[in-house]
Amino acid sequence: MRILVTNDDGILSEGIYTLANSLNNIAEEVIVVAPNSEQSATGHSITLNQPLRVKKVKFFDSDIEAYAVNGTPVDCVKLAVEAILKDRRPDLVVSGINNGPNLGTDVIYSGTVSAAVEAAIMEIPSIAMSMSSHEVEDYTGAAKFACRIAKKIFQLKNRNETIINVNYPTIPEADIKGVKVTTLGIRKYVNAFEERKDPRGNSYYWVSGTVKDIEQREESDVVAISQNYISITPIHFDLTHFETYKELQRLELEK
Amino acid sequence: MRILVTNDDGILSEGIYTLANSLNNIAEEVIVVAPNSEQSATGHSITLNQPLRVKKVKFFDSDIEAYAVNGTPVDCVKLAVEAILKDRRPDLVVSGINNGPNLGTDVIYSGTVSAAVEAAIMEIPSIAMSMSSHEVEDYTGAAKFACRIAKKIFQLKNRNETIINVNYPTIPEADIKGVKVTTLGIRKYVNAFEERKDPRGNSYYWVSGTVKDIEQREESDVVAISQNYISITPIHFDLTHFETYKELQRLELEK
Repeated sequence: MRILVTNDDGILSEGIYTLANSLNNIAEEVIVVAPNSEQSATGHSITLNQPLRVKKVKFFDSDIEAYAVNGTPVDCVKLAVEAILKDRRPDLVVSGINNGPNLGTDVIYSGTVSAAVEAAIMEIPSIAMSMSSHEVEDYTGAAKFACRIAKKIFQLKNRNETIINVNYPTIPEADIKGVKVTTLGIRKYVNAFEERKDPRGNSYYWVSGTVKDIEQREESDVVAISQNYISITPIHFDLTHFETYKELQRLELEK
Repeated sequence: MRILVTNDDGILSEGIYTLANSLNNIAEEVIVVAPNSEQSATGHSITLNQPLRVKKVKFFDSDIEAYAVNGTPVDCVKLAVEAILKDRRPDLVVSGINNGPNLGTDVIYSGTVSAAVEAAIMEIPSIAMSMSSHEVEDYTGAAKFACRIAKKIFQLKNRNETIINVNYPTIPEADIKGVKVTTLGIRKYVNAFEERKDPRGNSYYWVSGTVKDIEQREESDVVAISQNYISITPIHFDLTHFETYKELQRLELEK
């Protein structure tokens, strides 16, 4: 098994270090292609207006090939599969381990998840791994769990077009209740912007905001994490809304 | 009706100029909040690491309020709804008119479509408008069509969580065959990267690639545009893959 590893926190992060080295125990080959700087909340952004540079680096286990790229997580997956690994197509892409959750609506902003979505667009099975909070002491448990899913994913019928989105509780291992298969919940924010004045008296805005407590589907990822379960959500990228597709056909759009 | 208009080609583009001025004929109020520079392929990216600046500008019809923002299309929608229009929530968000298509898989990279998706996350009806090619002589037909959809959208049951993604043929009006309600097709590229050497002999890569001709669902947006129809695709952002959700529950994930 050849595994491509990427993330959005950047190649120098502890999450990707622990992840790549753990996967190296179960794969024949692990290749890391990750952003050279933090790329959180870059969503499915790609770099069109400047060229991409690739730099070979060595700070993972000695048999891991690793490259830093001046681009987004999606750039990294594209460049890895189409250029760096052109004749060595990966069997699996694993993105993470993200410092912080990727739950519900938020997955759409996430560089970590978007990298996995890009793999699915290329018909490569993929996993996105995130910790449920930003206060992470140890990524080892989540990295071991990634290894378990990496072996199971090949049993899935739709593995090539599905992304397995995992959120792992940031609590002592002994307190984790188990694993729940979930659907995406809803995440909304209050006070999304903070307005400030610069020294010249001009306004500027920081994206900010705290998560609003709203009612969730019982089977959602948000609920599973709040109950100390590992959450696994299968996601895909066919955004067609089939119900409205039928409804639109009944409207007279020609006039 | 209060309409918020944005785009990803930037506030100085002809597409948004024609669109905003056209919508001004059917709405009580049109407010433009758009990026101050081109933001193509930024997907659902938001700006976390630098503050956003808002500059009031005046080059639309005199009664249109307009603001340029140093951010992405999604930043613009968030900032408009949560800050600039805090007590004047828009009834509709229209994004575009994009110079170039947003068809099939490509919608996931699109700043134009992502701005409309952000509106849907905020439960505001939204429309994304794109021209089917980059060689656009006149946006007037597409802008008029946007006005028509802007009135029809309020008849849809799921209007608050659905995005209407429109691709408009870049051909003489007389050659347009009609309107087709479509599903998202598949867009894949060949030769996705071009490798070059800089004057110092170091490699760099440009994102490149040409669209691969692949078989499509007959009802897809890609087919409709190739047959000279206006394509209308309803999309949403619940990425849960429900079939795999059931399948995953049968795997033994606990061990």
